[in-house]
Amino acid sequence: MRIAIVGGTGDIGEGLALRWGRDTDHELRIGSRSEEKAATAGRTYEEILGENGVERSFEAGTNATIVSSADIVVLAIPPTYVRDTLMEITPSLPDDAIVVSPAVGIKREADGFRYDPPSVGSVTELVANVAEENQAVVGAFHTLPARRLADLDAPLGIDTAVVGDDVDAKTTIIELANSIDGLRALDGGRLSNAGEFEALTPSLINLAMENDDLHELGIRFE
Amino acid sequence: MRIAIVGGTGDIGEGLALRWGRDTDHELRIGSRSEEKAATAGRTYEEILGENGVERSFEAGTNATIVSSADIVVLAIPPTYVRDTLMEITPSLPDDAIVVSPAVGIKREADGFRYDPPSVGSVTELVANVAEENQAVVGAFHTLPARRLADLDAPLGIDTAVVGDDVDAKTTIIELANSIDGLRALDGGRLSNAGEFEALTPSLINLAMENDDLHELGIRFE
Repeated sequence: MRIAIVGGTGDIGEGLALRWGRDTDHELRIGSRSEEKAATAGRTYEEILGENGVERSFEAGTNATIVSSADIVVLAIPPTYVRDTLMEITPSLPDDAIVVSPAVGIKREADGFRYDPPSVGSVTELVANVAEENQAVVGAFHTLPARRLADLDAPLGIDTAVVGDDVDAKTTIIELANSIDGLRALDGGRLSNAGEFEALTPSLINLAMENDDLHELGIRFE
Repeated sequence: MRIAIVGGTGDIGEGLALRWGRDTDHELRIGSRSEEKAATAGRTYEEILGENGVERSFEAGTNATIVSSADIVVLAIPPTYVRDTLMEITPSLPDDAIVVSPAVGIKREADGFRYDPPSVGSVTELVANVAEENQAVVGAFHTLPARRLADLDAPLGIDTAVVGDDVDAKTTIIELANSIDGLRALDGGRLSNAGEFEALTPSLINLAMENDDLHELGIRFE
């Protein structure tokens, strides 16, 4: 499959690019608002994978460029940019591409991090509202610790819940998530369940803040 | 310590009573609105523990009775009863007792379970608001699967986050939680973080609904 990582230069984008680069054969494309930044990131990921014995070449370009003819488009961008970025890439987006939303609204308060969703209840639902009606939207990867994901030496052993109303699209993303070593994808049900999973993320940060021996936490359901 | 489990006849109350009964030497008291129900539950727990080779005797009584001279009071009751029950037991509650809130607001919708907190943001904060000002309130045990907890043959291997503004009280409850075999207590920070942890619970139910091989899920942060 052709996977376009919109915002592929950011934390979670880097982690997904490196893990899929190492653990799968999918064609990977790195997007950014700046074509140059995307190209630089792509070269860096190729080097990191090379050091891990994996020969890989990433396509790179602007977000709007990389999504054309993609099978899967991951919106690896902060929640505040989701609406504008999605509107920007929509003209280039293939009708049958699956749009994947990993972003989570979080705000920092004096005594801890708080879940801060958009008014529709979750970023995933915001994406579904902004996307064209026939576009399959899936929520996944919300609770992954970004820096740990990007450290190929770090074992995962964690889960991600995948939500969506298009069952085929959800199944595709569950398989794609399971293809990352140490990541287990669970069916999270319908798109309207997205908020409950996105809400998990601030608690991971709060626990890392409060417990010296814990950092870059993921969740395992067991 | 003397631990009074208010609503000790319910699911989570039973699990805590049996686990503490087996894994600790603390004095345990079972409370209910009905003295008779509490006594019956206490005898049942004694029998279950006896079958597990543990000789134990539980005190039992009305919720208001069992909290007097208790060191720790666990409000193992549904969120809708928290305010009234707390007001009912307050006259008997020792000033230095730690009040522990494990309840979570959840509602069922057509397509999944939703987090449904009281207007103050969490049941734990509601308890703190209703309790006398000098009473230490701690949130814990929110994400424990009740029936699995009550099945002494079921291994746990899961976590609970403990929140509170009184550091000594929080430390006491962290130790009490860690005294249950297979349960790891993590410092969740201040009381105002309670909502983020209570919000985890509906996602556990949604995952169990959607995945045939998963049931009575807990969370492990790793």
